[in-house]
Formats: sequence, structure tokens, C-alpha cells
Amino acid sequence: MYRSHNCGELNASNINTEVTLAGWVQKSRDKGFMNWVDLRDRYGITQLIFDESRTDKTVFELAKTLGREFVIQVKGTVIEREAKNKNIPTGEIEILVTEMTVLNAALTPPFTIEDETDGGEDIRMKYRYLDIRRNPVKNSLLFRHKVAMEVRKYLSDLDFCEVETPYLIKSTPEGARDFVVPSRMNEGQFYALPQSPQTFKQLLMVGGMDKYFQIVKCFRDEDLRADRQPEFTQIDCEMAFVEQEDILNVFEGLTRHLLKEIKGIDVDKFPRITYDYAMKTYGNDKPDIRFGMEFGELNEFAKHKDFPVFNAAELVVGIAVPGAGNYTRKEIDGLIDWVKRPQVGASGMVYAKCNDDGTFKSSVDKFYDQDDLTQWAKITGAKSGDMIFVLSGPADKTRGQLSALRMELATRLGLRKPEEFAPLWVVDFPLLELDEETGRYHAMHHPFTSPKPEDMHLLATEPGKVRANAYDMVLNGNEIGGGSIRIHDKATQQLMFKYLGFTEDEAKAQFGFLMDAFQFGAPPHGGLAFGLDRLVAILGGQETIRDFIAFPKNNSGRDVMIDAPAKIDDAQLKELHIKIDSI
Amino acid sequence: MYRSHNCGELNASNINTEVTLAGWVQKSRDKGFMNWVDLRDRYGITQLIFDESRTDKTVFELAKTLGREFVIQVKGTVIEREAKNKNIPTGEIEILVTEMTVLNAALTPPFTIEDETDGGEDIRMKYRYLDIRRNPVKNSLLFRHKVAMEVRKYLSDLDFCEVETPYLIKSTPEGARDFVVPSRMNEGQFYALPQSPQTFKQLLMVGGMDKYFQIVKCFRDEDLRADRQPEFTQIDCEMAFVEQEDILNVFEGLTRHLLKEIKGIDVDKFPRITYDYAMKTYGNDKPDIRFGMEFGELNEFAKHKDFPVFNAAELVVGIAVPGAGNYTRKEIDGLIDWVKRPQVGASGMVYAKCNDDGTFKSSVDKFYDQDDLTQWAKITGAKSGDMIFVLSGPADKTRGQLSALRMELATRLGLRKPEEFAPLWVVDFPLLELDEETGRYHAMHHPFTSPKPEDMHLLATEPGKVRANAYDMVLNGNEIGGGSIRIHDKATQQLMFKYLGFTEDEAKAQFGFLMDAFQFGAPPHGGLAFGLDRLVAILGGQETIRDFIAFPKNNSGRDVMIDAPAKIDDAQLKELHIKIDSI
Repeated sequence: MYRSHNCGELNASNINTEVTLAGWVQKSRDKGFMNWVDLRDRYGITQLIFDESRTDKTVFELAKTLGREFVIQVKGTVIEREAKNKNIPTGEIEILVTEMTVLNAALTPPFTIEDETDGGEDIRMKYRYLDIRRNPVKNSLLFRHKVAMEVRKYLSDLDFCEVETPYLIKSTPEGARDFVVPSRMNEGQFYALPQSPQTFKQLLMVGGMDKYFQIVKCFRDEDLRADRQPEFTQIDCEMAFVEQEDILNVFEGLTRHLLKEIKGIDVDKFPRITYDYAMKTYGNDKPDIRFGMEFGELNEFAKHKDFPVFNAAELVVGIAVPGAGNYTRKEIDGLIDWVKRPQVGASGMVYAKCNDDGTFKSSVDKFYDQDDLTQWAKITGAKSGDMIFVLSGPADKTRGQLSALRMELATRLGLRKPEEFAPLWVVDFPLLELDEETGRYHAMHHPFTSPKPEDMHLLATEPGKVRANAYDMVLNGNEIGGGSIRIHDKATQQLMFKYLGFTEDEAKAQFGFLMDAFQFGAPPHGGLAFGLDRLVAILGGQETIRDFIAFPKNNSGRDVMIDAPAKIDDAQLKELHIKIDSI
Repeated sequence: MYRSHNCGELNASNINTEVTLAGWVQKSRDKGFMNWVDLRDRYGITQLIFDESRTDKTVFELAKTLGREFVIQVKGTVIEREAKNKNIPTGEIEILVTEMTVLNAALTPPFTIEDETDGGEDIRMKYRYLDIRRNPVKNSLLFRHKVAMEVRKYLSDLDFCEVETPYLIKSTPEGARDFVVPSRMNEGQFYALPQSPQTFKQLLMVGGMDKYFQIVKCFRDEDLRADRQPEFTQIDCEMAFVEQEDILNVFEGLTRHLLKEIKGIDVDKFPRITYDYAMKTYGNDKPDIRFGMEFGELNEFAKHKDFPVFNAAELVVGIAVPGAGNYTRKEIDGLIDWVKRPQVGASGMVYAKCNDDGTFKSSVDKFYDQDDLTQWAKITGAKSGDMIFVLSGPADKTRGQLSALRMELATRLGLRKPEEFAPLWVVDFPLLELDEETGRYHAMHHPFTSPKPEDMHLLATEPGKVRANAYDMVLNGNEIGGGSIRIHDKATQQLMFKYLGFTEDEAKAQFGFLMDAFQFGAPPHGGLAFGLDRLVAILGGQETIRDFIAFPKNNSGRDVMIDAPAKIDDAQLKELHIKIDSI
């Protein structure tokens, strides 16, 4: 061992102890006759002191040559510090150094190893191993480990068995794009990396494993949006002999346990709202309910006058923004411009200010009187001093636009508090969604999701109206988990593939093994998957997942540190029976 | 919930309770007026009784239609069983069924779902989801989970942090073949799947994570030998500021913990032997030390007579086989044939029987007198009633042959007891090994392993003699883990690449990021990796890993259940900028 203690554990109780420490030079302050060095490791910082009058001359001189991030080992005595630092656990002591070895020198790092660094995203990613030395990143990784351990303990204590499913599986055209792996031993054939272990966990249920979980990497070859990674981690779970209610209870329990153990927060029973309710009330299937600003539908009190914009609209809908009644004309115009940006896409916005005296002043006073506006206030829940913003147009689009505005205003008003947690379940998702480009229906969750039995009769005639036994767990405006009760009989699964546009041959070629399995005694089953990257980020009070991933890729799917992907040898290509197809 | 209890938990204390159970029909015995059904789930078997006089007629008739592996749900009352079964926890009770629902019918399974099945390997793999219902496979998977949980708990309690390293990395020609993944977004470029997270865990040490572990899938595209899998799982570990001794202690502690927690076995401090000692004493760097039969080198007492075979040999070496003195001529000839098989490759074998009266009878009495043979017995440790077998030839080859014989005889003699555990460390491995085909030296462990400082001076002149700070943990004749202290400075790493035949450009292109990292303050570090598949198999008392993997691949790297790998669409190939290169 290069050390007797780490850099975070010595305190006044260790005074006069002889110790050996090792770590990195965080900084040094050379006062000529006295030299202090902050020695850092994962566990903390301990101050070293080199004193002309008490330290061996060679050691004293060597200390003056230390640069930032040098790796050193020191021996010395724990002594009481003159100027104590109450902010760190080791702040009462320092080490009077007697011996020192430089274990490794260091070039000057390309950015400062501080909580607030001067390095931009790109350079920090290239030197990620230096970035990880910074507390925010290091602590995020330690935090992630803690969350993962708690998840495993909780589920394992409930008799869930973690089973590793294969990474080299079969490509299926359904859903997102697969990453594929050419097989050297099977010419012209490919494995695919799993987008999720979906079929395997279902087969484990057919196999009687009863309760399965796995913290597992999954892969999607998608064009990357910000904060998406081609490889990501799921907490993947499945249970047999359960109904939706059982699954909601188990994983609500898990989430409550995490909030309690990790954050020390007690949360009540999670609200459960339907997809339809979520869309009508928040314009969003992953609503942030830490704040109000619920939608008020105003058709009745907005389409009865001569305002042609509203009269032509399918939906007129508004929100009351608390305390925004004093927004200046400039601020309001700014918000109108904001909703008219192409990313939001509204064509305009109406507003009504709720005065302190109970009267209203709106941008459409020409059309609506105080009685109308009183109704608007009532329906949106606006109070004196609030501002009502109203959008109109096709129902789905308008809801989306108002949702965007609601989230933006909440952010601006500081209502999205990172250390406040408001989980909920959204249930009764539609089974299918229409792809407007192709006119075809797609599975909203995946093709293995079971329709609600009472809606089965609508499959042939009104497929868009069929609800699924599918549910999402939403936390602070993010979907952190989702799942469904699965189909467990061959006939229903075949029917589902048919409605999704598979020919019988296609269904058999891709999922024949699953349908076969259903014939040999498949139990009712269901499950869900949490996105671990997102979950830890939110629990950690962050919106971005990147610092919770040790070695993330950039938006081109590139690891800039190791410079991957990269070209491979021709010999390697030849062995794999492939060649590059340049165009 | 489809059940109030599982099939393993009801006993006499539950008599008269109304319960709901769900599970699979294991078997049914129809006595006409009485019908017993064994209902099975992951947790056990509970007997159901349908009685013409007490059971509703519809239910009674329905019970007669149940086939093996039907999935049913029953309600009923727990009653005392007439014929008790002491062998199972539920053996004192049965359920008098009042209601029954068939949740799913089942085709007759293609093999029996019993501990001893009638299904061969191939059919069991094709229907792996049925195979998993069998206790031996199910229990192996549960056992694996238990081991993995204990590993995580133990390491986490020692402040190890589990960090997920990336799966999409860069291909390196060194070592075994990589599986590669074409990048759609970077034409002509490929990711590789990791053979191990080696460089990443070293970068985590450079990053100050101090103690890292990960239970992680790794990938090697090798021609598969029996019991090898293209994807396998490692317990991957690394520590900073440690010397070899520290690592041996930590992971000896882990293994001792597992043996205690999982098997209830206390193990003393693990023996530590050098690679040289292991090769000389057991002909093998992963010796099974549950039994003796240590090698006795006989050159001194075998090369002084006129026996030309021994005189021409570099090494004459023997083992004493306990109690084999009574082997018949036929048995001995069988063993001689066995060592002459091409897989072993000996050209012949000499034997000497140790008679009860202290005399010897050998196959080379013409050349060696009783005094010589007494020496042989002394050196091999042979006692009355034992048999000495002697091989000769080139030293390394002959040791390998005698090791094969030693293991074969131990197996035949029942000395390799699955429930006896004899772990040890083998240390001081050679740094390099000569590839006889190419005449080039390869890293025996990997190119990041540090040479012993005291051997560094031999690198240029006698590279084969340089020892590494490398070690293996061996358990019952299997290498279950191995690792090394790593190089942590750029100069040594560059030197190593040079000796391994890398040009400077090649080294830089492949491992430049690591050598860069070493310049920014890399701490001394080292680690090891356990093979989890093998570890759980051995702890489970098995020699084969396949039953401890939920969905293993066959020897052609094929998943016969899902039929992967498989062809992919031309459109998919096009997107990936590759085409099939048929010859």
C-alpha cells in the first residue's frame, strides 16, 4: 500500500500520528520559508506543510518543484493546523512532511481541475480522465453507483433475480435502427445489439423465472439529439402472474425507496392520471406537476364572439401564470415571439392580465368583455396579479405549444426546483399511433403490449382509440420508466402483428420463437424499464445525463477520447466477409 | 395479483386458509373420483386435490383436461394431506380446489420438465425457455444472481465504485479478434465491442476513481472451443496506489467471503506459488491442488543408466498415483494409449509398481534396479500400493503431458471433489511468451502489465526471462481470475510496445490516448478480472458454464433459439456503407 490513510479521513483525533498519504497536488502555496500543498484523492483533500525549519532540506526543496496534478507519496506527522478550515473534514489538521516521493510528474492539465472549470465541453471530453478528477463528475459517478446498488438491493430483497441476457442477438426491422455485428463464422450474417432485452425477459417469464430484473446496456443507432446516447442503461424488469396494478405498486415502491434512501425524501402515493387527462391538462404525456399552470379549455367562452381566430380554431386553451400580471409589454412581446419560433410553431398568442382590483386587461378587449374574461380566469384558475396566456388552433398541436410555453415559463419563474420531486404514473396509453407520413399505425410502446380487453373490439374499426395496458412513470417532467402488460397468447400476438402490417411470414421469421414459446404455457406477465442515466441525473438534481456517464459519446456518436469509431484493417474486413460500400 | 401465495410457501400453519395459487401443471394423477395435480412455480410445488364428492362438478371435469405445463390459477382451501411428503416444504398440505381458470394451455413440451430430462443438448437450447423451467438450470441462474449480489456488496462495502464503461469502443489488432460494429454516421468506420474494459479502467485510475469494479460483458470473436462463449462476463476490478500484495489480499478476501457466504466453507490463507514452481510441480499454471500427485523430477536417477529414451530426454518426470499399484496390465496399457493420443502426445510411458513389501516392479527393470526405483519412489512420494508413472522428453511438453495424465487420473480416482475448494495464487508469471510460429514475443497477460523492476535489465537480452507483476487466482484446476500491476508511465509503456513489435506510429494510433493520460499524473495501479461464468460454475460444483448462462450460444456462436446471427436487409447494409464480400 502506498498510503496508511486516504486524503479525506484524518482529523484532530489523529494528531501526532505518523501517516503515509498519496494523491494529486491540487495546489501549492509557496511562502518562501513555508510551503503548503493541498493533496487530493477521491476521498478528500489534506493539507501538507513543508517548513524550512522543520522539514529536511532535500524534501523542502523538492516540494518547491511540484506542479499541479503531480502524483506524490508523503510520510509525516499529523499536526494541528493554525488556520482551521471548517468547510472540510480534514480542516483541523495538516501533515508536517518528513519524506516525499514523486510517483509521477504531470504536464499542466489543459483545464483546471476545479468544481468550476475553465474547460469547454469538447476539451473535457477529450481528456475525460482529467474531467473525472473534478468533484462534479466524480460525485455523479459515485452517486450513480449508489443508486444502482440500492435498486439491486431493493429488487433482490423482493425475490427479483438479475439475469444477464445476450448482447449478440438478432436484428429486427421494427422500431429504431439496430447496431449490427458481422459474424465471421457465418458468412453474410449479422448479430444485432439489443435495443432492449424485451423478448428475452418475456421468455424468462415463460421459463418460470417469475421476477426478473437487469441493469443492462441497450443500443439504438439513431440520429442523436442532444442528451441522447447510442448506448444507454436500463433497469429492465418483468414479473409473471401480475396485473398492471401489481407492477405499478412494486415500482412505485422502488422509486419511493430510492427517494427516501438517496435523497431522504418521503413521497406520498404517486398520483395516477390517464394519458388523455395528461394531454388535456398539461399538453404532454410526461407532465411536470411540481407546479400548477394546468390548462383551461376555453372553447365555450372564447368561440361565442366575433374573434375569427378563435372561432376558426378547434381548441382555445389557456394557462394562468402566477404573478406574471406585471409583465411589461416588452416581456409579453418576447413571449409571443418565443411561441412563434418554428420550434414551438404557434401563430400568435392572446393574453389577459388579471388586475389587482379584479378587472382584466386583455389583448382582445375588442371582442371579449369582463364577464368573458372572468370566465377565462375561473377556468384557468387565474388570480389577481396573474397573467392568462391563450393559444388556439388544431387541438393536439395547440396543446403541444402551450405545454412548451408552460415549461418555459416554469423554468423562468424558478418553479422547476431540482431538489423537489413529484413522481406520478400516466396510464391508459393508446395502443397504436398513426404515422402521418406513411398512414400506417405503429405500436406506441412496442408490439408486445396488450390491448385493454374492453377495447379489443375497436381494433379493426378505430385502431387509434384502442387503449393499452401501458404506463409510464414520470418524474419532474421526464419519463423515467415505462412498460406494459404483455400479450401472452399466440393468437393475440399474431393479430397484433397483422394490425401492425406484418405479413404472416415476416412475423414468423422475426418473432416466431416468441410465438412458439407462447404455445408452451406462457403465464400472464408484464414489466417495465427505467432509463438509469436519466433517473440518476434527475435524482442528482441535473437535467443533463452526460456527467452521470463515465465515458459518454458526442452528438455524432463519437468517443473523442479514444477516437472511435475508426477504420479497421482490410484483413479484418475480409475475415468478416464484408467490404466498404462507398458511394 | 393472480395469487395470494406462491407454490413453495404453504405448510401446516396455513391449514384452513383460503388461498389463490397460479403456476404450471407439473403432473396430474387421475384416480377417477379423485384427481391430484402438482402445481409448480419458481418457488416450489404444491399439491392440488380435486375430489368428486367435494369439488364443483365443472371444476372437477375441467381438471381432467389439464395437460403438462398448462398454466392455471386455482382458488381453494389449504387442508392436511393424507400421505405426507417429508421431502418438500409443502409436503404436509394440499389445496382442495374450489375454482379454477386455465390461463394458458400448453402443447406437450418436446422434453420432460424434470431434473433429469430426456432432452438432448440441442433441443434444450432451441427451447431454452422450457429448459429454464427445470430446477438444475433455474437454480443455476438463481445461484449466479446470489454470487453477483455478494460480489457487489463486498466490493461496494470496501468503497469500490461500479462504473459502466462503454461497449462501443475502438478495435485493436493486439490479442484476440474483436467483434466490430459498422458506424452508420461515420462511413467506413467501425466500433469494436470490448474484449475487456482494460484501458478504460486504467483511465478511471488516472481519473482518481481509486477503486473500480464492474460486472460486465466482454466479447471475443474466437473459434469456439467447447465451453467458450463469444460473450462472457467478467468481474473487472482496478485499484490505485497499490502493490501486488494489496490486490492479492483484497481479492483473496472477496473469494473467501464468497466461499463462506455462498458455500458455508472457511478457507485458510490461500497458498501462493510462483509460475515456475507451478510448472515444475504440476506441469500447469492452474494446478488443481485438491490432491497431491506432485511431479518428481527424476533426471538424476533416470539418466545414469543405459536406457536410451531417458538418456536422450531433456526431462524425466513422474507422479505417484495413490492406490494404483493394483492396476491390471490392461488398465496400464489403456493409460499408455491415453497419453499417446494426439491430444496428449506422449511417445510412451514408463511405470513402476510399488509392491506392499517395499519392492518395485517396473516396465524398465532391465535398466533400473531396486535402488534406482527406491529413489524414484522417494522423489515422487510413492508409497506401497501406489503406481509411479514416468514420462520423458522436452521439458515443457513433457510437463504438459504429465499434467494431463495427472488430471485424468484424479478424475478417474474421484479426487476432483466438486464440493471441496482449494484456491491458490500463482504469481511471477513471465512478462512475454514466444510465439513459435512467428518467432515474435507476445504479452503473456497484456501489453499494459508491468515488468518486475529487478528484471527490467533482461528485456533487451533475454526477454523470455523477464517476470511480470502478474498473478492468477486458481480454483480447483481452473483459472478464475488474473491480473497485474500496470505500467503507469509513458516511457515504460512505449518501451513495452517497442518490444512487442509495435512501430511508434502504431502504438500512438492505437493507444496514444492511454500514453497521453500517463503524462497527466497517473498513479501506480493494478487490478484483476474474474471470469464470472466460470466462477459461478465452480462454486456451483459444475465444470461446465453453460447452465449458468441464461441464453448461451452453441459452438458455432449461434443462438439456436432466436436463430441468430441472421441475414439483414440490403437497405440496412446500404445505410451502414458496407456490402457482403462473398468469395
